[in-house]
Amino acid sequence: MNDPLNGATLMRRIDELARASSSSDVLTRLTLTPAHRLAADMVAGWMREAGMSVRVDRIGNVVGRLEGPGAQDGTLLVGSHIDTVRDAGRFDGNLGVVLGIAAVADLVRRQRALPFAVEVIAFSDEEGVRFPTTLTGSKAIAGTLDPQCLADVDADGVSRAKALSDFGAPDGDAALEARDPARILGYVEAHIEQGPVLEDRGLALGVVTAINGATRAEIQLHGMAGHAGTLPMHMRRDALAAAAEMILAIEARAKGEADLVATVGLLTVPSGAVNVVPGEVRFTLDLRSPVDAARAAALADVEARMRAIAADRNVALSLRITYDAPATPCDAKLQEQLAASMAHCGASPFRLPSGAGHDALAFRGLWPVAMLFVRCAGGISHNSAEYASPQDMEVAARVLTHFIETLATAG
Amino acid sequence: MNDPLNGATLMRRIDELARASSSSDVLTRLTLTPAHRLAADMVAGWMREAGMSVRVDRIGNVVGRLEGPGAQDGTLLVGSHIDTVRDAGRFDGNLGVVLGIAAVADLVRRQRALPFAVEVIAFSDEEGVRFPTTLTGSKAIAGTLDPQCLADVDADGVSRAKALSDFGAPDGDAALEARDPARILGYVEAHIEQGPVLEDRGLALGVVTAINGATRAEIQLHGMAGHAGTLPMHMRRDALAAAAEMILAIEARAKGEADLVATVGLLTVPSGAVNVVPGEVRFTLDLRSPVDAARAAALADVEARMRAIAADRNVALSLRITYDAPATPCDAKLQEQLAASMAHCGASPFRLPSGAGHDALAFRGLWPVAMLFVRCAGGISHNSAEYASPQDMEVAARVLTHFIETLATAG
Repeated sequence: MNDPLNGATLMRRIDELARASSSSDVLTRLTLTPAHRLAADMVAGWMREAGMSVRVDRIGNVVGRLEGPGAQDGTLLVGSHIDTVRDAGRFDGNLGVVLGIAAVADLVRRQRALPFAVEVIAFSDEEGVRFPTTLTGSKAIAGTLDPQCLADVDADGVSRAKALSDFGAPDGDAALEARDPARILGYVEAHIEQGPVLEDRGLALGVVTAINGATRAEIQLHGMAGHAGTLPMHMRRDALAAAAEMILAIEARAKGEADLVATVGLLTVPSGAVNVVPGEVRFTLDLRSPVDAARAAALADVEARMRAIAADRNVALSLRITYDAPATPCDAKLQEQLAASMAHCGASPFRLPSGAGHDALAFRGLWPVAMLFVRCAGGISHNSAEYASPQDMEVAARVLTHFIETLATAG
Repeated sequence: MNDPLNGATLMRRIDELARASSSSDVLTRLTLTPAHRLAADMVAGWMREAGMSVRVDRIGNVVGRLEGPGAQDGTLLVGSHIDTVRDAGRFDGNLGVVLGIAAVADLVRRQRALPFAVEVIAFSDEEGVRFPTTLTGSKAIAGTLDPQCLADVDADGVSRAKALSDFGAPDGDAALEARDPARILGYVEAHIEQGPVLEDRGLALGVVTAINGATRAEIQLHGMAGHAGTLPMHMRRDALAAAAEMILAIEARAKGEADLVATVGLLTVPSGAVNVVPGEVRFTLDLRSPVDAARAAALADVEARMRAIAADRNVALSLRITYDAPATPCDAKLQEQLAASMAHCGASPFRLPSGAGHDALAFRGLWPVAMLFVRCAGGISHNSAEYASPQDMEVAARVLTHFIETLATAG
């Protein structure tokens, strides 16, 4: 067998896995579809080939296990997801699974005895495209799965329970998949960055400091509609001009603080017309930070600034929080060990937050999590142009392997 | 007969005219409909009662004529329109016709011999709601009617030619309605302000300095869409943040100059989503000024500022002019005479531009035009809440009468 960590070998697996798709043109592999099952079978085959015992669990995860020296030893979880969005890239999720299997294959090939068990898990449901709930694969492992999610139905009216049965997942209560946190050493996931930071800095890899917490809000402004020709500037209560001032205030606040991002992604002018001074505007705010207190402070500042602008302009403002999720900090010690493995493999140990969500979210507060980001071209993801180079994947594979191997002694 | 200039008398006519509607609930009187014909018949009756000879012309105008002392004498045109928008106010257009008839009635009653003829014209088509072209009534008088407009069809496929025939307009080439500019002394129109300026200043009336010229443009911005979580602030090319900065620059430029108004009335974020940094934004600009050079300078400044903002933010900008109409200045001498009549009647001779268009637009460059604005409640127009008080209408009627009467000697 070739070196399992070789970049060209990894790219072949990425390409092979990408053929498991519902479409012949593009990669679409929604959770628990026949395409997902095909991918699960490929992954299971590679796990067995690497020396792991394999099973598909009750929630559709593929779980490969390399036993440790004794039943009482802890388990290190390594994983990512193999479901995709529609018209997806090849690397999102799949890369972490391919790298986890490769790391175990290399350890087994080199007969490195570990003082703990390793499970590589190909999570079944991270993208949340098919059903209204998501992260069910990782939540089952966490023991936090809401059994109601089995009644979720997709656009065709197929329930998740039926889809699991069609997928070939064993019958039984998915809650039984829950791990005992006392026995889990941690969770490590490699994933493409899905952002441009590493490429911009000329770096192959990054250590994730946290998965950002996020707040979303909907803002409504009510000023006074008026005739664009007859209403003098000084008498206007223009809701769009007020929104413009708010958008710039939001941008300025986020620019003033590292790792804080704020986005106004949607804006509408209901009843707007070219010759009418806007009386009403609605827009959204998306605010993310790796530090919950920083996010809360930014939200308070931004809201205060918006209320001041609204008052100055005699425009009514209402703000409704539509989503709020805390940050998931990565474990400080695991971050150090990942950084040490990167240095060992010749990669600069740069740190950055994750702006996107990942399966690791499900393990918040249960056991230590760590994430390794891999540079992707142009920051592009969820798109067929998504790309990570064989060179970068190989360095990531070597770092992940070294991390697992040294965790034994570092523990 | 009562005093034709009495406010209560004028209000009764406004109310009576408002009953000529296609709807029993609201006032809707689109051009050349049966409701329009009913209103035309009322107006014709009042004209005859005032001492005028009356005809409906080939384009649907109702023309009342008070002859002068000789055929070689000039004619003063007094008018406004009696078509309305859907769910209209009672005063828009109708007020100017009612006041013009009242002024002639008063002059005849008082046996004031004028050295010129007076025509009161109830124009047929100012709102432009039913057919794609508009101002056809005043354009026929101006001699600038495009005969193609007869082929225009409404939403039911009825042509303007057919509508004119159904209306009872006489057959024949509407171009024959054109007046010889050498014989026209001028055009004067009273109209509600349709804006809040007079009310804000506590004034009943205003002399219009010009009907604003207007430029409309569509602006498209192309930045780069990105993930709201993973794209750091400093790497963004956010089209909406760029638009926000432009909107504030447009507002600031217009605020800095009296009588200039600029409006961004429509803005859309195509493909926008709460968690996506906006890659594309489209918005409109509506820029108006009574002075063409001022409008051109403002447009140049605003465009330069927008291009600078786009360049700073690495966003592509395209700007397309979709509409451009020059200002129609009101005649300086007629403005003076209106102001003198206002002073005579105890009204402060305040001057202001007209932000909205009027039939006077059709006479630009052909003969002097003048407009008298009447305060309306809350600046509201094109709405059933539209309101001018009997007191204000009466002052306006007295000013208009005095203006016509003194024009004889001032000439």
